[in-house]
Amino acid sequence: MNDDVYKKSIELHEKNQGKLETKSKIRLDSKEVLSMAYTPGVAEVSRQIAQNPALASALTLKKNTIAIISDGTAILGLGNLGALAAIPVMEGKAIIFKEFAGVDAFPICLDTQDTEEIIKAVKQIAPVFGGINLEDIASPKCFEIEERLRRELSIPVMHDDQWGAATVALAGLINSLKLVGKNKENIRVVLTGIGAAGVATARLFAYYGIKNIIYVDSKGIVSSSRKDLTKEKEELLNLSIINAPEGTLADAIKNADVFIGLSKPGILSEDMVRSMSEKPIIFALANPVPEIMPDIAKKAGAYIVATGRSDFPNQLNNSLVFPGIFRGALDFKISQFSTQMFVAVAEALAGSVQDLSQEKILPDMFDKNVVKIVSQTLKKFS
Amino acid sequence: MNDDVYKKSIELHEKNQGKLETKSKIRLDSKEVLSMAYTPGVAEVSRQIAQNPALASALTLKKNTIAIISDGTAILGLGNLGALAAIPVMEGKAIIFKEFAGVDAFPICLDTQDTEEIIKAVKQIAPVFGGINLEDIASPKCFEIEERLRRELSIPVMHDDQWGAATVALAGLINSLKLVGKNKENIRVVLTGIGAAGVATARLFAYYGIKNIIYVDSKGIVSSSRKDLTKEKEELLNLSIINAPEGTLADAIKNADVFIGLSKPGILSEDMVRSMSEKPIIFALANPVPEIMPDIAKKAGAYIVATGRSDFPNQLNNSLVFPGIFRGALDFKISQFSTQMFVAVAEALAGSVQDLSQEKILPDMFDKNVVKIVSQTLKKFS
Repeated sequence: MNDDVYKKSIELHEKNQGKLETKSKIRLDSKEVLSMAYTPGVAEVSRQIAQNPALASALTLKKNTIAIISDGTAILGLGNLGALAAIPVMEGKAIIFKEFAGVDAFPICLDTQDTEEIIKAVKQIAPVFGGINLEDIASPKCFEIEERLRRELSIPVMHDDQWGAATVALAGLINSLKLVGKNKENIRVVLTGIGAAGVATARLFAYYGIKNIIYVDSKGIVSSSRKDLTKEKEELLNLSIINAPEGTLADAIKNADVFIGLSKPGILSEDMVRSMSEKPIIFALANPVPEIMPDIAKKAGAYIVATGRSDFPNQLNNSLVFPGIFRGALDFKISQFSTQMFVAVAEALAGSVQDLSQEKILPDMFDKNVVKIVSQTLKKFS
Repeated sequence: MNDDVYKKSIELHEKNQGKLETKSKIRLDSKEVLSMAYTPGVAEVSRQIAQNPALASALTLKKNTIAIISDGTAILGLGNLGALAAIPVMEGKAIIFKEFAGVDAFPICLDTQDTEEIIKAVKQIAPVFGGINLEDIASPKCFEIEERLRRELSIPVMHDDQWGAATVALAGLINSLKLVGKNKENIRVVLTGIGAAGVATARLFAYYGIKNIIYVDSKGIVSSSRKDLTKEKEELLNLSIINAPEGTLADAIKNADVFIGLSKPGILSEDMVRSMSEKPIIFALANPVPEIMPDIAKKAGAYIVATGRSDFPNQLNNSLVFPGIFRGALDFKISQFSTQMFVAVAEALAGSVQDLSQEKILPDMFDKNVVKIVSQTLKKFS
């Protein structure tokens, strides 16, 4: 990364005055059209929806529109910058939804950071939307917010920082295991960074059958002897079949088969990679600077290296799945997302790669088939 | 009005699956573009906005985007049908904003009808918007909601059922007075229907200098002897220089110069029109069926008749002003709307008619100049 992309990004945003606009599907060029699209004709549409609320999803934008909602507490890697600073990120996500999957997505950046207030606000604005993508909401409140909204709303709700990241990581791991000839039951995984993405990845891995996992946070190995564990970390310990020792990342990584980094730049050393089992799989997903640079990891013996960056091979990016997941949810009228669906998506995405190699564990996000593969996976849950 | 327009409207909504969609201003056709529109480049946009919040209006959709917000309590003439049934109306308004004035407007239909909850929800979702159009919110809570939001938000807020209706009525009256050769200080006005539009119209007329007004609601003349007056009706009595008698609409209308109907179908009779002063001006704006049909009013001696309908001459419709008002507010960075601005808009709109006649007191809403005339009026308030 250099300053050039930042300068160009500012220019792009200045020139276009933002990135998202609205568009009418109907040309309002006569009083006749206006009388159908608006008054008096629209009164009949309102009346019919009042009698049968399900019609809102057939006769209005609710059919194809989702909200991208953030409180600005965890913007990219930048932390809590608030609602206004979240807008360009949510707007960027909105145009990805439209360009990649034809989903109409609108950014809502909330001027509150309180869990209960966020839940209430999302429920209050939900009528117009067919789905809710939560984004860049800090851990651990993101868990409560997602769980409650899933229970209390009748439209699908997904926190993409959790499930987008987890689903792509699982898809990448499924294919990596094929390449190294190991199977999910026998591998040992070290997962660093127990935030939104880390917790969801652990949950998804466990659901898939990968249960030999050691978690490492900024204080070291997450073990039952520690007194500072959050509710989520205690749950993760119960999901793992290992009795985690006390210790550091260096202790955890010895003889591990897989390193999943969702944490901080540079924390994985060459020596640590060398201490791993044969054909180490390294997902160094910290952005923009990974836990270890790919060339260094390779030199130390890594067999497969993936990062979150577009300038190295094997970019693991949420964008591979979130457009297709909501495309499928809208098309197949998914009432709520489940862990099972994300596993199915990961398996389908992994299975779609024909020319699998160490340098290509997943399809490119510009591959036109990706959205179709992901969205069609949800058909069986409709 | 016949059933045909209702049937065609349902078909139009079904076929198009709603009326509004989103659109990306940027083609995401390469990793390079994506790296500027989204990560990593967008991080710099977020950082700059965090440092200087005013930049949100230059670098994001906030620059040109407003919210159309309803709680569904007063949908068209249909009453309280709730949030879902409000969607097609708000969506229709959104496409009018875009097609007529290039304003990106997004409908938000709230799943709450509580005044304080509505105020809070609007404030919480405000960051992404450059303005707020309140719509179809029942009287009298609409007054409190608009007033509070104007005070508590730093973007312009307008309840269109109030000020759109009032501004168009004033514009129409200004030109009607030219045609009948009367002036604002000497006319007597009867105004029926003291809801959102009625209260705002009375306030706007008073601000403009029309103060000889008798108000009539469903119980008869609004007079100080009545014990059932709302806060707003008491205020209106104070705005009028007439000591209103007790009585009915028939009593009020005798010798009046102007009838402004914002009430119910058919309440103005031929006899009442005959009892008015010379060259009566009749604005029968109840929708879809006016207080008196134009042909009947004319036969009884009305000099100018206007309605809310597109199938008669002199359609007085909010659509004449709301697109231009928000176009101007965004273009000229209006921090908040004021009554003075709406008077200025009414005067400018009235002044723009070159070929003034009994059958054409205002421009047609498809006249391309209307938005320009209205929006430019706000320039002097920037």
